[in-house]
Amino acid sequence: MIRLLGIDPGLRFMGWGIVDVEGNRLRHVANGVLATHSGDDVPRRLCDLHEGLKRLIEHYRPMEAAVEETYVNRNGSSTLKLGYARGVALLVPALAGLSVHEYGAKSVKRAVVGTGAATKEQVTMMVQRLLPGAEVKKADASDALAVAICHAHHRGSAQQVALGVRMA
Amino acid sequence: MIRLLGIDPGLRFMGWGIVDVEGNRLRHVANGVLATHSGDDVPRRLCDLHEGLKRLIEHYRPMEAAVEETYVNRNGSSTLKLGYARGVALLVPALAGLSVHEYGAKSVKRAVVGTGAATKEQVTMMVQRLLPGAEVKKADASDALAVAICHAHHRGSAQQVALGVRMA
Repeated sequence: MIRLLGIDPGLRFMGWGIVDVEGNRLRHVANGVLATHSGDDVPRRLCDLHEGLKRLIEHYRPMEAAVEETYVNRNGSSTLKLGYARGVALLVPALAGLSVHEYGAKSVKRAVVGTGAATKEQVTMMVQRLLPGAEVKKADASDALAVAICHAHHRGSAQQVALGVRMA
Repeated sequence: MIRLLGIDPGLRFMGWGIVDVEGNRLRHVANGVLATHSGDDVPRRLCDLHEGLKRLIEHYRPMEAAVEETYVNRNGSSTLKLGYARGVALLVPALAGLSVHEYGAKSVKRAVVGTGAATKEQVTMMVQRLLPGAEVKKADASDALAVAICHAHHRGSAQQVALGVRMA
């Protein structure tokens, strides 16, 4: 059994999801959203995200992390802010000794729905179907579970390839 | 006497500079550049920057930090990478309890050279003149000292304003 942490980074809302993987089976453990106050200054908000992620990792003890590579090209300033949040999302699990993997939005959609052109609603629906019993209240948490599922599929295939090589 | 840490953030090279301020007088303490390996993955590189900044703060014990708000609008991907590095540059001093201040490139140029339209060479020359005896080998370190100088000026004015209010 391996426990995965999925993160959908953002400065205002950072979605997170914990999924256990055993062979081909996925099990939902927990999900949620870390929120920061838009009135606080950026260093304070980054500290809050750092603290939140650190506590999650200490509590759930995941072994690997997967972070969604979201692109926002509205303008340079908002891309930069997203960068701060993603920087923290990549840093904190790495500091805790987890391997950290990044997946683009298309890879996540393909892994969860079967097509890179899936809509947000399709992703949400399939996350619920793949993780029966999961109560997902926020879209960011659903996206975080989706990136964890994506990583579960990719590491599964990588493992099969590795086994194939060993058997050859 | 107050000790300031200036940071010019970047994922490949992160410039840093330590400056002591006593009234109107500035004294150079140290400067340098933290470098990461472009072959390493991003989480590893962010850990290296985190570790480097943490050690600097433990060693020099600055009380306040100033970070340059550099904008790169080449493309979304490089802005995002700069965002990761700036996120770490804002986070680590804040985690260590320092107040963290941000200054745009124009404010830095204005504080150091007297005009927001100054060239990079003018900034480098004025940093050397304002901090006699400082050996600055890298441009990123010079930019980090410049943002520390900028913060010294701004906090000086803020203090005078505060005194003015108190005396009024």
